[in-house]
Amino acid sequence: MRVLSGIQPTGQLHWGNYFGAIRQYIDLQESNDGFYFIADLHALTTVRSADQLRANTLDIALDLLALGLDPNQATLFVQSHIPEVTELTWLLMTGTPMGLLERCHAYKDKKEKGLNADAGLFTYPVLMAADILAYDSQIVPVGADQVQHIEVCRDLAGSFHHTFGETFVLPKAKTLDVGARVPGTDGQKMSKSYDNTLPLFGDVKKIRKQIMRIVTDSRPVDEPKDPVGDHLFDLYQLFASPDEIAAMAEKYRAGGFGYGEVKKAVAEASEAYFAPARERREELAQDLDTVRDILAAGAARAREVAGGVLDRARSAAGLR
Amino acid sequence: MRVLSGIQPTGQLHWGNYFGAIRQYIDLQESNDGFYFIADLHALTTVRSADQLRANTLDIALDLLALGLDPNQATLFVQSHIPEVTELTWLLMTGTPMGLLERCHAYKDKKEKGLNADAGLFTYPVLMAADILAYDSQIVPVGADQVQHIEVCRDLAGSFHHTFGETFVLPKAKTLDVGARVPGTDGQKMSKSYDNTLPLFGDVKKIRKQIMRIVTDSRPVDEPKDPVGDHLFDLYQLFASPDEIAAMAEKYRAGGFGYGEVKKAVAEASEAYFAPARERREELAQDLDTVRDILAAGAARAREVAGGVLDRARSAAGLR
Repeated sequence: MRVLSGIQPTGQLHWGNYFGAIRQYIDLQESNDGFYFIADLHALTTVRSADQLRANTLDIALDLLALGLDPNQATLFVQSHIPEVTELTWLLMTGTPMGLLERCHAYKDKKEKGLNADAGLFTYPVLMAADILAYDSQIVPVGADQVQHIEVCRDLAGSFHHTFGETFVLPKAKTLDVGARVPGTDGQKMSKSYDNTLPLFGDVKKIRKQIMRIVTDSRPVDEPKDPVGDHLFDLYQLFASPDEIAAMAEKYRAGGFGYGEVKKAVAEASEAYFAPARERREELAQDLDTVRDILAAGAARAREVAGGVLDRARSAAGLR
Repeated sequence: MRVLSGIQPTGQLHWGNYFGAIRQYIDLQESNDGFYFIADLHALTTVRSADQLRANTLDIALDLLALGLDPNQATLFVQSHIPEVTELTWLLMTGTPMGLLERCHAYKDKKEKGLNADAGLFTYPVLMAADILAYDSQIVPVGADQVQHIEVCRDLAGSFHHTFGETFVLPKAKTLDVGARVPGTDGQKMSKSYDNTLPLFGDVKKIRKQIMRIVTDSRPVDEPKDPVGDHLFDLYQLFASPDEIAAMAEKYRAGGFGYGEVKKAVAEASEAYFAPARERREELAQDLDTVRDILAAGAARAREVAGGVLDRARSAAGLR
């Protein structure tokens, strides 16, 4: 199955991104034809600094490769390297009812908050539809909040078919398991919008400091505590083995065990967990030519597929 | 000066198109670097039949070449052959305030009439801006109703510059003279929306019949008439020499001269006027390979320019 997944280069990846989505995306490469793209054209709606966007794009490529995305199994590429996508965007745009876009929640939410929305955010679902259709994608793994956009994609493809005849492969959304709870440094769900994230990569000492500053309650050390629902315990679970988790739960219940010790355990376990990826990332960062070659090969493969799809769409619409 | 002009392949050209716009566009090739494109991507907002769009696109190419557009002086190409334009459209889209597009009258008018507008019509001014900016266009000759879109183009370029630095050549609108009045078969301004047009090309006998059916008043033949403001006289003026026009005015004022005779004169004068173009068009229609070669050479030249502009825009925004 052709599986498509895009990730926006809008900043440092954090633990929530990894456990909530990226790990699952990458796993899909094993038994599928995975197409993974770095959505720099989408990121333009928020990243309005060229240096930042360039740095973010390369960083995400390094991150994904370090985390196990295998360019021999999957196709990794940068969205803007595939010009066929914006051309397809226009073909779809001409059949897109305004009402469909007005109902899409990214735009609606922003508008309801009284924020200035631009036409990039408004037409974002059309670009996303073109991304999906350009590669004959069959499966699009998404968070629950993105299912609407896959429906929009199917609607646009269906309406194109109604006017011009069968052209595209209709994709299916695969809703990702919410999976493990990943609390941020304030105990809420880890999210950039709460400013409570812990990065996957970056300076280890700095990350350790952030972990040591995680907010906890002020119950005395002696008091026995329930590990269930404790955010430090939840974080520890992400990285520890079943035996280690059981041992930690025991310590919680016994009491006489301070949060500082749990934080230290979280720091150590997370460092050990990400160490191999961190090492691969450092190697890759020393060899950016290889990374660029991987992206170029990915773009060539993606353009081959997108070129075929666009040819079909152009003929169907009478542009050739 | 680089002059850019686009024409939508939405159907047969009529006398109003020619005298109101096309003749003036083509004249500009003499002392400028004229870029003329057939706006098939724009036409997609209304032409939703592939065969129709394909036929219209080729027809307009034949029309323009027959009417004197000289591919050795100017660059003639089809919009969708230049993929750089849709890529640039997205770059501009991400900085386009919704309010700017909501105020554009093509969309506003349609919405106010309670008609369903689609996102193609809504974002049309962004595509138009990309068309203009992609070729470093300096002058864009337009009808008065299109001046707003050139302002939008300048606004979008200016806002891109503000965010990413100087990148584009800012175009200037050149408002076309309204020129001669070209009434339609019902005496109103000739326009497709009034269904009162007389085509430039097509079956001569059929056109003559349409001319003979032009609506007139029922004053008796004997009565002397004022030629000023008479729609048949206005049509005659488009094609006749000053001497012929003076002689015709004399006949109007003398009376004893029927509208049927004026119609006949209009038919003959228009046939003679368009005869050389009609002949060239018939020759070209026998040699479509040459027409396709002209369009391919035009696209190659246009892509060269657009590629350079897009490279500047990509670097500025951080996509490369």
